Amino acid sequence: MTGETLAELIQLKKTGRELSDRQISWWIEGVTNGSIPDYQTTAMLMAIYFKGMSPRETAWLTHCISTSGDVIDLSSLKGIKCDKHSSGGVADTVSIPLIAIAASCGAVMPKMSGRGLGHTGGTIDKLEAIPGFNVNLTKAQFTEIVNRWGGAIMAQTSDVAPADKKLYALRDVTATIDSIPLIASSIMGKKLASGADVIVLDVKWGSGAFMSSTSEAIDLARTMVEIGEDNGKRTIAYVTDMNEPLGDAVGNALEILEAVQVLRGGGPPKLREVILTLCDEILIQSGLAQSPQEARAHALRAIADGSALRRLADIVSAQDGDPSFIDHPELLPQAAVERTVHARWSGFVSRIDARGIGEAAMHLGAGRQTKEDAIDLSVGLVLDIKTGDTVSAGQKIASIFARNDEDARVCEQEILASINVSPTAVPPWQTVVARITRKDGVVTYEHP
Amino acid sequence: MTGETLAELIQLKKTGRELSDRQISWWIEGVTNGSIPDYQTTAMLMAIYFKGMSPRETAWLTHCISTSGDVIDLSSLKGIKCDKHSSGGVADTVSIPLIAIAASCGAVMPKMSGRGLGHTGGTIDKLEAIPGFNVNLTKAQFTEIVNRWGGAIMAQTSDVAPADKKLYALRDVTATIDSIPLIASSIMGKKLASGADVIVLDVKWGSGAFMSSTSEAIDLARTMVEIGEDNGKRTIAYVTDMNEPLGDAVGNALEILEAVQVLRGGGPPKLREVILTLCDEILIQSGLAQSPQEARAHALRAIADGSALRRLADIVSAQDGDPSFIDHPELLPQAAVERTVHARWSGFVSRIDARGIGEAAMHLGAGRQTKEDAIDLSVGLVLDIKTGDTVSAGQKIASIFARNDEDARVCEQEILASINVSPTAVPPWQTVVARITRKDGVVTYEHP
Repeated sequence: MTGETLAELIQLKKTGRELSDRQISWWIEGVTNGSIPDYQTTAMLMAIYFKGMSPRETAWLTHCISTSGDVIDLSSLKGIKCDKHSSGGVADTVSIPLIAIAASCGAVMPKMSGRGLGHTGGTIDKLEAIPGFNVNLTKAQFTEIVNRWGGAIMAQTSDVAPADKKLYALRDVTATIDSIPLIASSIMGKKLASGADVIVLDVKWGSGAFMSSTSEAIDLARTMVEIGEDNGKRTIAYVTDMNEPLGDAVGNALEILEAVQVLRGGGPPKLREVILTLCDEILIQSGLAQSPQEARAHALRAIADGSALRRLADIVSAQDGDPSFIDHPELLPQAAVERTVHARWSGFVSRIDARGIGEAAMHLGAGRQTKEDAIDLSVGLVLDIKTGDTVSAGQKIASIFARNDEDARVCEQEILASINVSPTAVPPWQTVVARITRKDGVVTYEHP
Repeated sequence: MTGETLAELIQLKKTGRELSDRQISWWIEGVTNGSIPDYQTTAMLMAIYFKGMSPRETAWLTHCISTSGDVIDLSSLKGIKCDKHSSGGVADTVSIPLIAIAASCGAVMPKMSGRGLGHTGGTIDKLEAIPGFNVNLTKAQFTEIVNRWGGAIMAQTSDVAPADKKLYALRDVTATIDSIPLIASSIMGKKLASGADVIVLDVKWGSGAFMSSTSEAIDLARTMVEIGEDNGKRTIAYVTDMNEPLGDAVGNALEILEAVQVLRGGGPPKLREVILTLCDEILIQSGLAQSPQEARAHALRAIADGSALRRLADIVSAQDGDPSFIDHPELLPQAAVERTVHARWSGFVSRIDARGIGEAAMHLGAGRQTKEDAIDLSVGLVLDIKTGDTVSAGQKIASIFARNDEDARVCEQEILASINVSPTAVPPWQTVVARITRKDGVVTYEHP
């Protein structure tokens, strides 16, 4: 890159030209080693926001991010390694029950996960609600647990995709989060570095998601499928609803309890639907079922006979956690104050704003406004209604678990402000909107 | 601005919303005092590049830049103070003869000027070719010389519009120079802080200018006229040609000699036309003439009777310079090597690329590639042709003044590469393309 400056590359991007592999590599190396000043990188990010990136540029940017640090070698794991990733949502308690069910059916699920930010939760925070649970495994521990139990969940180390960490921090303070090539390369850069063979993506759309329309979510999903397939990973993306919270519980200990409910055969139907749909995909991709029907039968059997719940207990024990919370929920962190929310009006629930509910829980202390914030694992809320339900004035619609009465009162107002009731019937949101795959270079969109 | 972050303001601008006066003030204060990180400012600059600014936003940004440091008080100067500014070009030897002519006709011309960058020259560099000339005057010296001689030229101090200095440095390395609201607020922010009553702008268009089309140049000119008038300054803008070099000489000492030629009644006709047009405007705005014809008669008389040239000598002496270079050009810095360039083909000169010629002179050492570069005041080139002229193979078309033979040889190739000759006649470029003014809120475009 002798003689070329980042200002010249910004100029190219600003005028809609395609950057070469070599130019992108040089930029991301400079981001990683600090030789390119942040003030140039943020101008480039804003130019990318406006001019986009071609599929080729996005794929190469992802490659550069994924190779900017350690690339995890999972070759010592037996079988087809499957990874699942959600683009982030509210009451999105999918990963923990999914890993327990799929692993109990024979799938191999080595999962590296992150913490929550803003109104969205993170799997690692939720697991820390379990007494003793260790999210910081060594590679040897991680491999051993996955080989023995088919699944383990550890916190992503900062040695994986450090360029993403740097870019994300800059995007966060320069209003450049909402760019499809930047979101796609950030997610897939980490996934490619994590060493799985199969990547199953859950791309959320709606008020509680990054993507505010189905078309944007489908575009992001397609972009990530193309990146994964271009890099030799079998990649399947689902677009699912995040206009309302997916499950009923929002808050770390509360979501762990909801995961147990799902593994006991209960739990919110919408949450179950996403978990089982992704599980079908994983079992088929792992060669453990030939059809969605066969996969579903395996999964339901693992739930019905208790093997999925036992598998959760085994993984928790293997990661130094105490599984007795499964039968004794009072062993999880408990909030000081519980408050019941009642409906103010009668009618049909026409809206439960996922972002509003996520922020209400964050304000209780369940989530972080900034990365540095501490969270309270005990607090949160549980909803009793979904969009399309009928409610009557005075009916209980939610429970709040708070540190004090004042927090609970504020949360009640926020919950009520996030719910609309209308006099006419409203259809529920469609849970699974699309499945996007690529085979022999052809992208297929299926709408169930 | 409690609770508002620059990321939120970037988001507003990115989505095409108008920033309030308060929001712009807060940003520019943060740029000036360093409380806002550069990486946020560059993202904002790129968002402004893509989404533009409304006239109201641009005017307020300019106000914030102009008041970010010292605002010069010229009230101790008698008469109507006139300032002239060029958007930058090649062989643009206008300011020095213009000040001498206008001042000798009675105008008041307190000028703060800058140094050259890239392929464009700067008045302060040119003046330093004069032995002893002092560009760093105190305010008292500056005022005294202008009151006595009607004109003085000093280097802009870094205390004037420091926000512009910061923003320009960031734009320079993030490909955000070419934004009309950013160029307009940068130029006018400095002009408003310089305390003149009348501002005459020379906006260049063409290959050697920032603006590559007349429509862009007219847009920039209109924007600056509106900013000036909104801030109570009589502001008149001309759009002039910079597709070919304006004068014949490019290089600091060489341009001083060309200024003397103009003041002796000679010099390149195109350069004379721009100088005299701007001088007409200044004499009319100063109340020293009632019509362009009357103004032109004054100026031509001042040249013919030698008073303009004497005025240059007086100002040079007042600023500690030795005016004997006027009759003894050998007292100016002399280049070691002179080389003559001959035409390779016969025909009509169809193009003399201003940027190519400017860069050829810069490579000789006459200009700076970066702000830190030192320049050689002696080197440069003088052209013998203009677009539309006929040439014959072997005819002398330029002289090169260089530090050594190798530099001169390279320069000859660069000059030849910048000149096209065609077999058919080509019309010359129109020198003055438009005059833009605003009166009673109405913007008028005149095309001579």
